[in-house]
Amino acid sequence: MKVHTIEEHVRYVETDRMRVVHHSTYLAWFEIGRTSLLAESGHPYHELEAEGLLFPVIEYQCRMTGRADYGDTVRIDTTIETLRSRTVVFIYEAFVRGETVATGRTQHVAVDLNHKPRRMPSALLDALQGYVTQNESQNP
Amino acid sequence: MKVHTIEEHVRYVETDRMRVVHHSTYLAWFEIGRTSLLAESGHPYHELEAEGLLFPVIEYQCRMTGRADYGDTVRIDTTIETLRSRTVVFIYEAFVRGETVATGRTQHVAVDLNHKPRRMPSALLDALQGYVTQNESQNP
Amino acid sequence: MKVHTIEEHVRYVETDRMRVVHHSTYLAWFEIGRTSLLAESGHPYHELEAEGLLFPVIEYQCRMTGRADYGDTVRIDTTIETLRSRTVVFIYEAFVRGETVATGRTQHVAVDLNHKPRRMPSALLDALQGYVTQNESQNP
Amino acid sequence: MKVHTIEEHVRYVETDRMRVVHHSTYLAWFEIGRTSLLAESGHPYHELEAEGLLFPVIEYQCRMTGRADYGDTVRIDTTIETLRSRTVVFIYEAFVRGETVATGRTQHVAVDLNHKPRRMPSALLDALQGYVTQNESQNP
Repeated sequence: MKVHTIEEHVRYVETDRMRVVHHSTYLAWFEIGRTSLLAESGHPYHELEAEGLLFPVIEYQCRMTGRADYGDTVRIDTTIETLRSRTVVFIYEAFVRGETVATGRTQHVAVDLNHKPRRMPSALLDALQGYVTQNESQNP
Repeated sequence: MKVHTIEEHVRYVETDRMRVVHHSTYLAWFEIGRTSLLAESGHPYHELEAEGLLFPVIEYQCRMTGRADYGDTVRIDTTIETLRSRTVVFIYEAFVRGETVATGRTQHVAVDLNHKPRRMPSALLDALQGYVTQNESQNP
Repeated sequence: MKVHTIEEHVRYVETDRMRVVHHSTYLAWFEIGRTSLLAESGHPYHELEAEGLLFPVIEYQCRMTGRADYGDTVRIDTTIETLRSRTVVFIYEAFVRGETVATGRTQHVAVDLNHKPRRMPSALLDALQGYVTQNESQNP
Repeated sequence: MKVHTIEEHVRYVETDRMRVVHHSTYLAWFEIGRTSLLAESGHPYHELEAEGLLFPVIEYQCRMTGRADYGDTVRIDTTIETLRSRTVVFIYEAFVRGETVATGRTQHVAVDLNHKPRRMPSALLDALQGYVTQNESQNP
């Protein structure tokens, strides 16, 4: 199983007056994680969109167990929990100096430009298969 | 049980190239919902912070079942699912033209300025009690 | 000359670790100011877009002479500095408790959905004319 | 004269429904440019803040002459236009595929943790001197 890893520097604008990263920032990092995973798989998301395949988020969760602040570098590890022909669930773990600061999960549906459900092409499913954790990888 | 209701116009900057509101925007609206509820309860959050009480988010969830876009007005209903002396869980429902577009949940811990856990003052707990749904309102 | 006025509460997410509003927030407020002015003029921006008229920002400036922070309400006054058939310049003044905290300016071009320059319809120009400051209102 | 260069991938959240990067995004990139320049100079901004030196933005300008969209990589070149003991002006040029898409300028004052004006330490001024364009480098 492959894990996609990427690093981001915390941006000043991402902090808030509590002197930590605002909790919504994790969603931006998770977005970077999964789109970078897609690029690594050979299917950059902007090309998927150009071909008429969108992946809107329909559900997300994030649990913060540590803190990230300006000056920190965050590593985001991304894998796939569930991969089906019309849906994909990405899972994330964010680290600062080797310690987990947050874990998250986003669920997506595959839709066309009119937001109607559609199947992902098999080439994409094949490319993503390697990132799937556990035994979750049925493609009905 | 009281429900706190507030309306926000969708901002252009909150949309993305998929021509809907970016999913992270719901967190901004939920934040407005709960801080406005706090203000309505007589305890504006900026005053709580000035008194040394912070409410960092430690977990959040959001499920989107509809769409919001630029030009829409979003109504956010906020209540409290769980209220204890050191933790509070807010729940949210977002509506566009009377239809639910998203539901969410944020869990918070009460901490001091050094991010050490602390109890909420009883006046605050009393003021929030009315927003608690169901039978969840123990204050151990 | 009409001045369009709107108020916004500072959002927590708009602050940064310097414990003021991040400077980019003024652009969001200016955007609210001008789109609210357009709505007041009878031409909501989402309707203009639906009719194939976009107003991308091509230049902006902001000068901050005061501070806004969480807990503050900001009043944004918007007028028009220059109005021509293919370009419009909005100017802004932001106030907290009656004191100016920032002034700004955004320059826009009228384009179609393919980002080609186009003229604004005369009904729109007529509706905006009342917000133009000084003697700047030539429509060549 | 040194030019500081850094590259950023456009984030999906940075786009808007006009299918370009929202104009406020340039401020985030300029912020990355100047803080990365400071780090390169040996004076990371989070260390300056820890030593009680803040650089709030008091004025900014941006002119967009091209477009950036999701899928693009943006290069940000940062130099210093003016460097004095209590003020610094950074200037920026953003490129996509070698073409300029925006130019910008931010003016900062040096203040202490109470937002009172203060002088920058001479070690910092010396380190930044190499990034100053033209003949603007008096330190009165």
